[in-house]
Amino acid sequence: MEEKTDKKNIPASELRQDIISGDWVVIATGRAKRPDDFANFQRIQDDKGIENCLFEDPVASGQEKDVLIYHRADGEWTLRVFPNKYPSFSEGKADSSLSEGPYFAMPGVGYHEIIVTRDHYRQLALLDVMEVAEVFDAYQDRYLDLMNKKEVNYIAIFHNHGKEAGASIPHPHSQLMAIPVVAPYIKLELDESARYYKSNKHCVFCIMAEYESEEKKRVVFENDEFIAFCPFASRAAFEVWVMPKKHNPYFERITNQQKVKLAEVFSKGLGSIYKALNDPPYNFYIHSAPCDGKDYPHFHWHIEILPHTSTWAGFELDTGIEVSTIQPEVAAEFLRKQIE
Amino acid sequence: MEEKTDKKNIPASELRQDIISGDWVVIATGRAKRPDDFANFQRIQDDKGIENCLFEDPVASGQEKDVLIYHRADGEWTLRVFPNKYPSFSEGKADSSLSEGPYFAMPGVGYHEIIVTRDHYRQLALLDVMEVAEVFDAYQDRYLDLMNKKEVNYIAIFHNHGKEAGASIPHPHSQLMAIPVVAPYIKLELDESARYYKSNKHCVFCIMAEYESEEKKRVVFENDEFIAFCPFASRAAFEVWVMPKKHNPYFERITNQQKVKLAEVFSKGLGSIYKALNDPPYNFYIHSAPCDGKDYPHFHWHIEILPHTSTWAGFELDTGIEVSTIQPEVAAEFLRKQIE
Repeated sequence: MEEKTDKKNIPASELRQDIISGDWVVIATGRAKRPDDFANFQRIQDDKGIENCLFEDPVASGQEKDVLIYHRADGEWTLRVFPNKYPSFSEGKADSSLSEGPYFAMPGVGYHEIIVTRDHYRQLALLDVMEVAEVFDAYQDRYLDLMNKKEVNYIAIFHNHGKEAGASIPHPHSQLMAIPVVAPYIKLELDESARYYKSNKHCVFCIMAEYESEEKKRVVFENDEFIAFCPFASRAAFEVWVMPKKHNPYFERITNQQKVKLAEVFSKGLGSIYKALNDPPYNFYIHSAPCDGKDYPHFHWHIEILPHTSTWAGFELDTGIEVSTIQPEVAAEFLRKQIE
Repeated sequence: MEEKTDKKNIPASELRQDIISGDWVVIATGRAKRPDDFANFQRIQDDKGIENCLFEDPVASGQEKDVLIYHRADGEWTLRVFPNKYPSFSEGKADSSLSEGPYFAMPGVGYHEIIVTRDHYRQLALLDVMEVAEVFDAYQDRYLDLMNKKEVNYIAIFHNHGKEAGASIPHPHSQLMAIPVVAPYIKLELDESARYYKSNKHCVFCIMAEYESEEKKRVVFENDEFIAFCPFASRAAFEVWVMPKKHNPYFERITNQQKVKLAEVFSKGLGSIYKALNDPPYNFYIHSAPCDGKDYPHFHWHIEILPHTSTWAGFELDTGIEVSTIQPEVAAEFLRKQIE
């Protein structure tokens, strides 16, 4: 029995190009693991319990300064948003006073907020669809409130789960940073999707969503409004994107009905990762068009979910080319199996 | 006593722009740590000892297929280079046979080699200058041998130290990947340094080296040929770049005399990180102009050393903006103190 990857002069890996950015990933099939191998890892157990949780104490965490709070019918709060006590961005005036010699710098002007759900032990992957829809309500509410602030040109909304994925507090929470510059990764997606439109007269994200929905093999779950799939050029094993099927550059314009459809697809996608990888650390974030007063008709908002399945090492840091050890088609098949 | 960062309307952070790429980093001075706080971390201890080391066994590791070997006068080998048993890139023919629908893919054609120094327990930070110079000899020898191969357009040379930084085998080793595409990070540096030259009639890397050498505050060590410094827009705490002072796009054209000068500055830089951070995990890599047959007169080769001092979390993955918790000026001062 000779394995294909052992044959002389047949590379045991493939280079796949990201259709949006033009960047490359390596799918190292020669080192491939089986899908269930990814669940065998030791998580850092850093939860010191509900009694030691900062987010259980509204005063200590600064939650009492909340800018948004949702309640149940019985009066108990279900979600609240408040300023980060140690903000990476905070209010002020943007100027170039911090520049030096040939270098440009400016104050970290903006807003940095924490979005907390009530239950310490129920991470987003375990919430029901309407609870997840409420989280997207909060994202949208805060986005709409901050997008027209002077000095705010981009709003990053993201979620870290697990110490390995950068969550310093185990209580489930998302973060919002409203910042004065357009983030480099967004700029790349904006520039390259505009270039794609110019060449092909189609939105590159719409092309992806349509092709994946037809092809099926990389789809994790879909309904009539949204699709969750493992990207052809996945950067991480079990990476999942959630994308609206109808063209729309702006997350904040999502309707209430769409939010429930989004919550359904997102929950199935994240839930399948949770089961398949045995509660892995993960990050997810929304990519939406900037709020800098310009129009971005060729962009298409979406969510990227990145399970923390490997470490960026020298090659990735050197080149920007990620090495993944499972084909997205195999990952998607395994994720689909988790959905009853 | 009121701290500056507590004042209303003064952001406790600054945004610094990378003069080469145009990308941004956040220096979150509001969350700043003291320099010696970075040494307080628990390293993963994964070295099962010399008797279980794959690289101590020339047959098991495939070292017997070496493509380069250096010896001491007494006949003992000091350094050897051999093909990776599980290559991310291997020999073959580049074509578009793996493309699918709207997506482009190709076989992972190229070379993937391991560069091993003899002593299991002496990492690069602990080698003397002439031993480090020998490592650079090997990098150059292999580069010169592979750069004219058909299908090779870029050569990545990098080193991972420590499990957290992606080193799966503790024995000190570097890796070389000769690949068919120009890496995205290199492409960005090439494009932007050409743009800078067009606007300013100067190499942006030469501007950096000259300014830092004059300004001194971010310099870790320098001699007449090379400078090691913490970049103004450091992405990681204690990041250090090593750069030739004289303009040269191509690492592989370094002279033997320059290699010794490089080894001196590199050793001081890496050695100061080793001491300051108490043997941290780290990555370093060479950025050199591609070997794709084109000229890159505005590029300037250099080495980037990245101690593994934090994890990329949601914000970094979302935006491409890194958050660092120490000012490069403070980091450089602390590194200088380690050099006797």
